[in-house]
Amino acid sequence: MADKTLETLFHDTLKDIYYAERKILKALPKMARGADAPELKAAFEKHREETEGQIERLEQVFEIIGKPARGKTCDAIEGILAEGDEILEEYKGTAALDAGLIASAQAVEHYEITRYGTLKRWALVLGLDDAAALLDATLQEESATDEGLTALADSSANAKALEPA
Amino acid sequence: MADKTLETLFHDTLKDIYYAERKILKALPKMARGADAPELKAAFEKHREETEGQIERLEQVFEIIGKPARGKTCDAIEGILAEGDEILEEYKGTAALDAGLIASAQAVEHYEITRYGTLKRWALVLGLDDAAALLDATLQEESATDEGLTALADSSANAKALEPA
Repeated sequence: MADKTLETLFHDTLKDIYYAERKILKALPKMARGADAPELKAAFEKHREETEGQIERLEQVFEIIGKPARGKTCDAIEGILAEGDEILEEYKGTAALDAGLIASAQAVEHYEITRYGTLKRWALVLGLDDAAALLDATLQEESATDEGLTALADSSANAKALEPA
Repeated sequence: MADKTLETLFHDTLKDIYYAERKILKALPKMARGADAPELKAAFEKHREETEGQIERLEQVFEIIGKPARGKTCDAIEGILAEGDEILEEYKGTAALDAGLIASAQAVEHYEITRYGTLKRWALVLGLDDAAALLDATLQEESATDEGLTALADSSANAKALEPA
Protein backbone atom coordinates (compact mmCIF):
# COMPACT_ATOMS: atom_id res chain seq x y z
CA MET A 1 0.00 0.00 0.00
CA ALA A 2 2.86 2.36 0.80
CA ASP A 3 3.63 2.93 -2.86
CA LYS A 4 0.31 4.61 -3.63
CA THR A 5 1.01 8.13 -4.82
CA LEU A 6 -0.70 10.96 -6.64
CA GLU A 7 -0.36 8.94 -9.82
CA THR A 8 -2.46 6.12 -8.33
CA LEU A 9 -5.00 8.62 -7.05
CA PHE A 10 -5.22 10.33 -10.44
CA HIS A 11 -5.80 6.98 -12.16
CA ASP A 12 -8.41 5.86 -9.59
CA THR A 13 -10.30 9.14 -9.86
CA LEU A 14 -10.16 9.02 -13.64
CA LYS A 15 -11.82 5.58 -13.51
CA ASP A 16 -14.42 7.01 -11.12
CA ILE A 17 -15.43 9.88 -13.42
CA TYR A 18 -15.27 7.64 -16.51
CA TYR A 19 -17.82 5.35 -14.90
CA ALA A 20 -19.88 8.39 -13.85
CA GLU A 21 -19.91 9.95 -17.32
CA ARG A 22 -21.12 6.75 -18.93
CA LYS A 23 -23.92 6.50 -16.37
CA ILE A 24 -24.83 10.14 -17.02
CA LEU A 25 -24.88 9.47 -20.78
CA LYS A 26 -27.54 6.81 -20.16
CA ALA A 27 -29.53 8.97 -17.74
CA LEU A 28 -29.79 12.10 -19.90
CA PRO A 29 -32.24 10.77 -22.54
CA LYS A 30 -34.56 9.74 -19.69
CA MET A 31 -34.35 13.22 -18.20
CA ALA A 32 -34.97 14.78 -21.63
CA ARG A 33 -38.05 12.59 -22.15
CA GLY A 34 -39.30 13.38 -18.65
CA ALA A 35 -38.83 17.16 -18.84
CA ASP A 36 -41.89 19.26 -19.53
CA ALA A 37 -40.57 22.45 -21.15
CA PRO A 38 -39.12 22.10 -24.69
CA GLU A 39 -36.12 24.28 -23.74
CA LEU A 40 -35.25 21.95 -20.85
CA LYS A 41 -35.58 18.90 -23.11
CA ALA A 42 -33.24 20.65 -25.55
CA ALA A 43 -30.75 21.47 -22.77
CA PHE A 44 -30.60 17.81 -21.70
CA GLU A 45 -30.22 16.67 -25.31
CA LYS A 46 -27.41 19.15 -25.91
CA HIS A 47 -25.69 17.97 -22.75
CA ARG A 48 -25.98 14.36 -23.88
CA GLU A 49 -24.01 15.26 -26.99
CA GLU A 50 -21.44 17.14 -24.93
CA THR A 51 -21.12 14.15 -22.61
CA GLU A 52 -20.10 11.97 -25.58
CA GLY A 53 -17.25 14.39 -26.26
CA GLN A 54 -16.31 14.42 -22.58
CA ILE A 55 -16.07 10.62 -22.57
CA GLU A 56 -13.77 10.80 -25.61
CA ARG A 57 -11.56 13.33 -23.79
CA LEU A 58 -11.32 10.97 -20.81
CA GLU A 59 -10.26 8.19 -23.20
CA GLN A 60 -7.51 10.50 -24.48
CA VAL A 61 -6.37 11.08 -20.88
CA PHE A 62 -6.23 7.30 -20.27
CA GLU A 63 -4.11 7.07 -23.42
CA ILE A 64 -1.76 9.82 -22.16
CA ILE A 65 -1.11 7.88 -18.94
CA GLY A 66 -0.81 4.60 -20.85
CA LYS A 67 -3.73 2.84 -19.17
CA PRO A 68 -6.80 1.16 -20.65
CA ALA A 69 -10.00 3.25 -20.45
CA ARG A 70 -11.89 1.46 -17.70
CA GLY A 71 -14.47 2.62 -15.19
CA LYS A 72 -14.74 1.81 -11.51
CA THR A 73 -18.11 1.85 -9.74
CA CYS A 74 -18.80 5.37 -8.56
CA ASP A 75 -21.19 5.25 -5.59
CA ALA A 76 -21.55 9.03 -5.63
CA ILE A 77 -23.06 9.23 -9.11
CA GLU A 78 -25.28 6.21 -8.40
CA GLY A 79 -26.74 8.08 -5.43
CA ILE A 80 -27.06 11.41 -7.24
CA LEU A 81 -28.81 9.80 -10.22
CA ALA A 82 -31.08 7.78 -7.92
CA GLU A 83 -32.31 11.06 -6.45
CA GLY A 84 -32.98 12.34 -9.98
CA ASP A 85 -35.04 9.22 -10.73
CA GLU A 86 -37.01 9.85 -7.57
CA ILE A 87 -37.86 13.38 -8.73
CA LEU A 88 -38.95 12.00 -12.13
CA GLU A 89 -41.28 9.53 -10.43
CA GLU A 90 -42.59 11.65 -7.58
CA TYR A 91 -43.11 14.90 -9.50
CA LYS A 92 -44.34 13.52 -12.83
CA GLY A 93 -47.32 15.57 -14.00
CA THR A 94 -46.80 18.28 -11.38
CA ALA A 95 -45.96 21.95 -11.79
CA ALA A 96 -42.66 21.48 -9.97
CA LEU A 97 -41.24 18.69 -12.18
CA ASP A 98 -38.90 20.86 -14.27
CA ALA A 99 -37.63 22.81 -11.26
CA GLY A 100 -36.84 19.49 -9.57
CA LEU A 101 -35.18 18.05 -12.67
CA ILE A 102 -33.00 21.14 -13.02
CA ALA A 103 -31.90 20.81 -9.38
CA SER A 104 -31.09 17.12 -9.95
CA ALA A 105 -29.09 17.90 -13.07
CA GLN A 106 -27.19 20.61 -11.20
CA ALA A 107 -26.23 18.09 -8.51
CA VAL A 108 -24.78 15.95 -11.32
CA GLU A 109 -22.93 18.95 -12.76
CA HIS A 110 -21.45 19.86 -9.39
CA TYR A 111 -20.16 16.34 -8.92
CA GLU A 112 -18.44 16.59 -12.29
CA ILE A 113 -17.14 20.09 -11.53
CA THR A 114 -15.46 18.96 -8.32
CA ARG A 115 -13.93 15.83 -9.92
CA TYR A 116 -12.66 17.60 -13.05
CA GLY A 117 -11.32 20.49 -10.94
CA THR A 118 -9.36 18.04 -8.80
CA LEU A 119 -8.15 15.97 -11.75
CA LYS A 120 -7.01 19.06 -13.63
CA ARG A 121 -4.94 20.28 -10.65
CA TRP A 122 -3.46 16.81 -10.14
CA ALA A 123 -2.59 16.58 -13.85
CA LEU A 124 -0.66 19.85 -13.56
CA VAL A 125 1.24 18.65 -10.47
CA LEU A 126 2.06 15.43 -12.33
CA GLY A 127 3.37 17.41 -15.31
CA LEU A 128 0.60 16.08 -17.57
CA ASP A 129 -0.12 19.37 -19.27
CA ASP A 130 -1.99 17.88 -22.24
CA ALA A 131 -4.23 15.92 -19.89
CA ALA A 132 -4.82 19.07 -17.81
CA ALA A 133 -5.93 20.94 -20.93
CA LEU A 134 -8.41 18.16 -21.85
CA LEU A 135 -9.79 18.07 -18.29
CA ASP A 136 -10.07 21.84 -18.23
CA ALA A 137 -12.04 21.88 -21.49
CA THR A 138 -14.63 19.59 -19.91
CA LEU A 139 -14.59 21.57 -16.66
CA GLN A 140 -15.50 24.73 -18.60
CA GLU A 141 -18.37 22.90 -20.36
CA GLU A 142 -19.75 21.57 -17.07
CA SER A 143 -19.66 25.03 -15.50
CA ALA A 144 -21.43 26.52 -18.51
CA THR A 145 -24.08 23.78 -18.35
CA ASP A 146 -24.61 24.49 -14.65
CA GLU A 147 -25.04 28.21 -15.35
CA GLY A 148 -27.41 27.50 -18.24
CA LEU A 149 -29.57 25.38 -15.93
CA THR A 150 -29.70 28.18 -13.35
CA ALA A 151 -30.81 30.56 -16.11
CA LEU A 152 -33.60 28.14 -17.17
CA ALA A 153 -34.75 27.83 -13.56
CA ASP A 154 -34.78 31.60 -13.08
CA SER A 155 -36.45 32.41 -16.38
CA SER A 156 -39.31 29.92 -16.21
CA ALA A 157 -39.18 26.63 -14.27
CA ASN A 158 -39.21 28.08 -10.74
CA ALA A 159 -42.06 30.49 -11.42
CA LYS A 160 -44.09 27.74 -13.13
CA ALA A 161 -43.57 25.53 -10.10
CA LEU A 162 -45.31 28.04 -7.86
CA GLU A 163 -48.77 27.10 -9.17
CA PRO A 164 -50.41 23.66 -9.13
CA ALA A 165 -50.50 22.08 -12.62
CA MET B 1 -49.75 14.24 -7.13
CA ALA B 2 -50.92 17.21 -9.19
CA ASP B 3 -50.74 19.57 -6.24
CA LYS B 4 -47.00 19.25 -5.79
CA THR B 5 -45.48 22.67 -6.23
CA LEU B 6 -42.27 24.54 -5.49
CA GLU B 7 -43.26 24.53 -1.84
CA THR B 8 -43.27 20.70 -1.79
CA LEU B 9 -39.97 20.61 -3.63
CA PHE B 10 -38.42 23.09 -1.21
CA HIS B 11 -39.56 21.02 1.76
CA ASP B 12 -38.37 17.73 0.22
CA THR B 13 -34.96 19.19 -0.61
CA LEU B 14 -34.66 20.70 2.86
CA LYS B 15 -35.20 17.22 4.32
CA ASP B 16 -32.59 15.86 1.91
CA ILE B 17 -29.87 18.31 2.98
CA TYR B 18 -30.84 18.02 6.66
CA TYR B 19 -30.22 14.28 6.46
CA ALA B 20 -26.98 14.93 4.54
CA GLU B 21 -25.65 17.47 7.07
CA ARG B 22 -26.22 15.11 9.96
CA LYS B 23 -24.38 12.34 8.11
CA ILE B 24 -21.53 14.76 7.35
CA LEU B 25 -21.37 15.75 11.04
CA LYS B 26 -20.75 12.10 11.89
CA ALA B 27 -18.22 11.59 9.08
CA LEU B 28 -16.00 14.59 9.81
CA PRO B 29 -14.38 13.32 13.05
CA LYS B 30 -13.41 10.14 11.19
CA MET B 31 -11.86 12.21 8.41
CA ALA B 32 -10.03 14.39 10.98
CA ARG B 33 -8.64 11.29 12.73
CA GLY B 34 -7.62 9.77 9.40
CA ALA B 35 -5.90 12.86 7.99
CA ASP B 36 -2.13 12.97 8.16
CA ALA B 37 -1.24 16.70 8.17
CA PRO B 38 -2.17 18.65 11.34
CA GLU B 39 -3.56 21.52 9.22
CA LEU B 40 -5.94 19.14 7.41
CA LYS B 41 -7.06 17.62 10.72
CA ALA B 42 -7.71 21.18 11.94
CA ALA B 43 -9.66 22.05 8.78
CA PHE B 44 -11.94 19.03 9.26
CA GLU B 45 -12.42 19.86 12.95
CA LYS B 46 -13.28 23.46 12.13
CA HIS B 47 -15.75 22.29 9.51
CA ARG B 48 -17.37 19.94 12.02
CA GLU B 49 -18.10 22.94 14.24
CA GLU B 50 -19.44 24.91 11.27
CA THR B 51 -21.65 21.97 10.34
CA GLU B 52 -23.32 22.14 13.78
CA GLY B 53 -24.24 25.76 13.05
CA GLN B 54 -25.47 24.82 9.58
CA ILE B 55 -27.77 22.18 11.06
CA GLU B 56 -29.17 24.80 13.44
CA ARG B 57 -29.81 27.14 10.51
CA LEU B 58 -31.70 24.36 8.72
CA GLU B 59 -33.81 23.88 11.86
CA GLN B 60 -34.63 27.58 11.74
CA VAL B 61 -35.71 27.21 8.10
CA PHE B 62 -37.98 24.27 9.04
CA GLU B 63 -39.46 26.55 11.72
CA ILE B 64 -40.03 29.34 9.18
CA ILE B 65 -42.05 26.99 6.95
CA GLY B 66 -43.87 25.53 9.96
CA LYS B 67 -42.66 21.96 9.52
CA PRO B 68 -40.86 19.64 11.94
CA ALA B 69 -37.12 19.30 11.32
CA ARG B 70 -36.88 15.86 9.80
CA GLY B 71 -34.45 14.26 7.39
CA LYS B 72 -35.15 12.04 4.42
CA THR B 73 -32.58 9.49 3.23
CA CYS B 74 -30.21 11.20 0.82
CA ASP B 75 -28.70 8.61 -1.52
CA ALA B 76 -26.31 11.18 -2.94
CA ILE B 77 -24.51 11.89 0.31
CA GLU B 78 -24.44 8.18 1.17
CA GLY B 79 -22.59 7.54 -2.09
CA ILE B 80 -20.25 10.52 -1.74
CA LEU B 81 -19.32 9.58 1.84
CA ALA B 82 -18.87 5.93 0.86
CA GLU B 83 -16.22 7.04 -1.62
CA GLY B 84 -14.51 9.03 1.15
CA ASP B 85 -14.45 5.90 3.34
CA GLU B 86 -12.90 3.99 0.47
CA ILE B 87 -10.08 6.56 0.21
CA LEU B 88 -9.51 6.33 4.00
CA GLU B 89 -9.18 2.56 3.75
CA GLU B 90 -7.30 2.22 0.48
CA TYR B 91 -4.83 5.09 0.97
CA LYS B 92 -4.14 4.74 4.71
CA GLY B 93 -0.41 5.04 5.34
CA THR B 94 0.34 6.27 1.81
CA ALA B 95 1.73 9.58 0.59
CA ALA B 96 -1.49 10.33 -1.28
CA LEU B 97 -3.91 9.96 1.64
CA ASP B 98 -4.38 13.68 2.36
CA ALA B 99 -4.73 14.59 -1.32
CA GLY B 100 -7.43 11.93 -1.61
CA LEU B 101 -9.20 13.04 1.56
CA ILE B 102 -9.24 16.64 0.35
CA ALA B 103 -10.79 15.55 -2.95
CA SER B 104 -13.43 13.53 -1.06
CA ALA B 105 -14.24 16.47 1.20
CA GLN B 106 -14.55 18.74 -1.82
CA ALA B 107 -17.07 16.35 -3.37
CA VAL B 108 -19.10 16.73 -0.16
CA GLU B 109 -18.77 20.53 -0.30
CA HIS B 110 -19.93 20.65 -3.91
CA TYR B 111 -22.99 18.60 -3.08
CA GLU B 112 -23.82 21.08 -0.36
CA ILE B 113 -23.06 24.06 -2.62
CA THR B 114 -25.49 22.87 -5.29
CA ARG B 115 -28.26 22.08 -2.78
CA TYR B 116 -27.92 25.34 -0.81
CA GLY B 117 -27.69 27.33 -4.06
CA THR B 118 -30.94 25.76 -5.27
CA LEU B 119 -32.71 26.11 -1.90
CA LYS B 120 -31.71 29.75 -1.60
CA ARG B 121 -33.10 30.59 -5.05
CA TRP B 122 -36.31 28.67 -4.32
CA ALA B 123 -36.68 30.48 -0.98
CA LEU B 124 -36.49 33.82 -2.81
CA VAL B 125 -39.12 32.75 -5.36
CA LEU B 126 -41.34 31.60 -2.48
CA GLY B 127 -40.93 34.97 -0.76
CA LEU B 128 -39.10 33.37 2.18
CA ASP B 129 -36.45 36.07 2.49
CA ASP B 130 -35.37 35.12 6.02
CA ALA B 131 -34.91 31.51 4.98
CA ALA B 132 -32.96 32.65 1.90
CA ALA B 133 -30.60 34.66 4.14
CA LEU B 134 -29.98 31.62 6.38
CA LEU B 135 -29.36 29.37 3.38
CA ASP B 136 -27.05 31.94 1.85
CA ALA B 137 -24.99 32.20 5.04
CA THR B 138 -24.33 28.46 4.85
CA LEU B 139 -23.68 28.61 1.11
CA GLN B 140 -20.93 31.18 1.71
CA GLU B 141 -19.37 28.98 4.42
CA GLU B 142 -19.39 25.92 2.15
CA SER B 143 -17.75 27.87 -0.68
CA ALA B 144 -15.07 29.19 1.70
CA THR B 145 -14.44 25.65 2.97
CA ASP B 146 -14.07 24.40 -0.58
CA GLU B 147 -11.57 27.15 -1.40
CA GLY B 148 -9.64 26.48 1.81
CA LEU B 149 -9.34 22.81 0.85
CA THR B 150 -8.02 23.75 -2.59
CA ALA B 151 -5.42 25.97 -0.90
CA LEU B 152 -4.34 23.10 1.38
CA ALA B 153 -4.03 20.78 -1.61
CA ASP B 154 -1.99 23.32 -3.57
CA SER B 155 0.28 24.30 -0.68
CA SER B 156 1.22 20.84 0.54
CA ALA B 157 -0.94 17.74 0.08
CA ASN B 158 -0.58 17.36 -3.70
CA ALA B 159 3.21 17.81 -3.68
CA LYS B 160 3.56 15.38 -0.76
CA ALA B 161 1.52 12.82 -2.70
CA LEU B 162 4.05 12.78 -5.52
CA GLU B 163 6.54 10.73 -3.50
CA PRO B 164 6.00 7.30 -1.92
CA ALA B 165 5.64 7.55 1.89
